[in-house]
Amino acid sequence: MIQKLTSEERAGQIAQLHGWQAAANRDAIERNFEFADFNEAFGFMARVAIKAQEMDHHPEWFNVYNKVNITLSTHEADGVTQRDIELASFIDSITA
Amino acid sequence: MIQKLTSEERAGQIAQLHGWQAAANRDAIERNFEFADFNEAFGFMARVAIKAQEMDHHPEWFNVYNKVNITLSTHEADGVTQRDIELASFIDSITA
Repeated sequence: MIQKLTSEERAGQIAQLHGWQAAANRDAIERNFEFADFNEAFGFMARVAIKAQEMDHHPEWFNVYNKVNITLSTHEADGVTQRDIELASFIDSITA
Repeated sequence: MIQKLTSEERAGQIAQLHGWQAAANRDAIERNFEFADFNEAFGFMARVAIKAQEMDHHPEWFNVYNKVNITLSTHEADGVTQRDIELASFIDSITA
């Protein structure tokens, strides 16, 4: 079973990502994205969805028009794991 | 400019939809959906996204794995309008 990261590990990993932060009230990481319009926002979500399915690791996310908020956590570990960092890194790579 | 529905109009329209209800703290309608898995949930979202873009009327929505919550309201009218009912009816038609 995958282990959740320690606070130190999590902080170290977040520091290497772009714009991600620890969620306020739970062991998760989150980032807000803003795009030109809905077309661009949903196109981004489609790319993340395909990657998430491939990883069998899915985001929690909210969208309204050009804005997307993504929260990542690993249910079975009840916290942030390397899987979340991997998905966050992919997301960063397509929004550079 | 599109006018928001009166309380009576809104209630009448909601009664003809499936599973939609008035949102708790704002003039909006919402519905929760549950699918077999993420593939089915995101496929549903893609169909709604294409319709929304065609209508130039976009949802606020949240997804985690097989669950989708959709809130509809019309920004420029600051409340529920016929556009929301139209999009809700389309969504109902693809989830029957």
